[in-house]
Amino acid sequence: MHVVVPFAADTPKTRLSEVLSPPERTALARAMLADVLSAITATGHVPTVLSTSPLSLENGCSCDDLPSTTPPGLESASDIPVTVDDRPLTAAVNAQLEAAEEPVAIVMADLALATPAALSTLFASGAADGVAIAPGRGGGTNALVVRHPDFRVDYHGASYLDHREHAAEIGAPLESVDSFRLGTDVDEPADLVEVLIHGRETAADGGESRTATRLRELGFELETTDGRVTVARDRS
Amino acid sequence: MHVVVPFAADTPKTRLSEVLSPPERTALARAMLADVLSAITATGHVPTVLSTSPLSLENGCSCDDLPSTTPPGLESASDIPVTVDDRPLTAAVNAQLEAAEEPVAIVMADLALATPAALSTLFASGAADGVAIAPGRGGGTNALVVRHPDFRVDYHGASYLDHREHAAEIGAPLESVDSFRLGTDVDEPADLVEVLIHGRETAADGGESRTATRLRELGFELETTDGRVTVARDRS
Repeated sequence: MHVVVPFAADTPKTRLSEVLSPPERTALARAMLADVLSAITATGHVPTVLSTSPLSLENGCSCDDLPSTTPPGLESASDIPVTVDDRPLTAAVNAQLEAAEEPVAIVMADLALATPAALSTLFASGAADGVAIAPGRGGGTNALVVRHPDFRVDYHGASYLDHREHAAEIGAPLESVDSFRLGTDVDEPADLVEVLIHGRETAADGGESRTATRLRELGFELETTDGRVTVARDRS
Repeated sequence: MHVVVPFAADTPKTRLSEVLSPPERTALARAMLADVLSAITATGHVPTVLSTSPLSLENGCSCDDLPSTTPPGLESASDIPVTVDDRPLTAAVNAQLEAAEEPVAIVMADLALATPAALSTLFASGAADGVAIAPGRGGGTNALVVRHPDFRVDYHGASYLDHREHAAEIGAPLESVDSFRLGTDVDEPADLVEVLIHGRETAADGGESRTATRLRELGFELETTDGRVTVARDRS
């Protein structure tokens, strides 16, 4: 299986601009990418990063500490292939689907809660000529596996519903993958809560995920007000 | 397994008051309860409703059309036992845990996306003397299975983290159940989006869930603005 991780290298995570500066958003996006790449390699697959611009995984990714169950041929993070395609997400992903000669998995780079277990379930899902989708909040397509040669993505709007419809049109059986972890993408300040709550369960070694660690370094902590949990940032 | 569904019968879903009147909130809460009870009965378990006040399931629940895989002894919705306990949620649930002589599952009544498959996975999770929790957004405890005799709940705040800590204190192994469907409780207007997106996959018969149908009857439809999906209400 060809596992592709699209990554917006240039202006990542603009919806977090209320709480994070541009360099902080870049650092957080890199930490999430590193967590996602680690989780994928721990399933035994070698991911390909589909980046909007050239990217050094060795120096900017902080994913040099790959899991011990690294797939053959992957010695360090710098061995993870990076494909540069500066087109919008949908066009870049469809180029990957068109060129593919094997099943393709597309895993978003901001699935900071992704675990090897959740990804393994995803990769094993879907019929031999079908499509499997892990939906996100608001009808997003957070991760999918494409085994039908004619399936193409369109990430605009409620893409999960559009992808269901498209799959039905081309006769591709569609399976919905039920995962809270894959369903949680980090786009908005409220999503940071999930990283801090679940970050310690995400890392394979029982430690904390890179994303959670980075958030704490930036001063974020959980805060409970009126029975509801939010994040607060200490800028001292 | 004793499956308990706590239900706030009197003033349900106050956080939806921006978009729904009190009688509409009551109707929506009843539809969600009916969907949850149907999904539980389809797993072969007889749920008990733990209600804050007396409740007629036959006339107010719209769950008279039980699934065909109804457990033995459950002929109609009016056979679903209702226990009335007007104490706050935590106290009422802990009374159930204290009295239990078998494993107890607590499933919130607003898990409108719950499917028999997701619930079956939950019910089968957790060690013989442990606890299994399906967390919700913001660290909530949306559903759990308790097999350790000393485990007690506390639903205030980030209850998922508190429950993890409590389980560790009493030596109960804790398993986190990874489910988008069980992780989605319907509390706020933004959650209604999920009901409309996934409602058609939720009903066992391939139709639409009662909750989604009720929302459409109330005039709610999905709306895509700037690539993001919200609900809009047509009050005409």
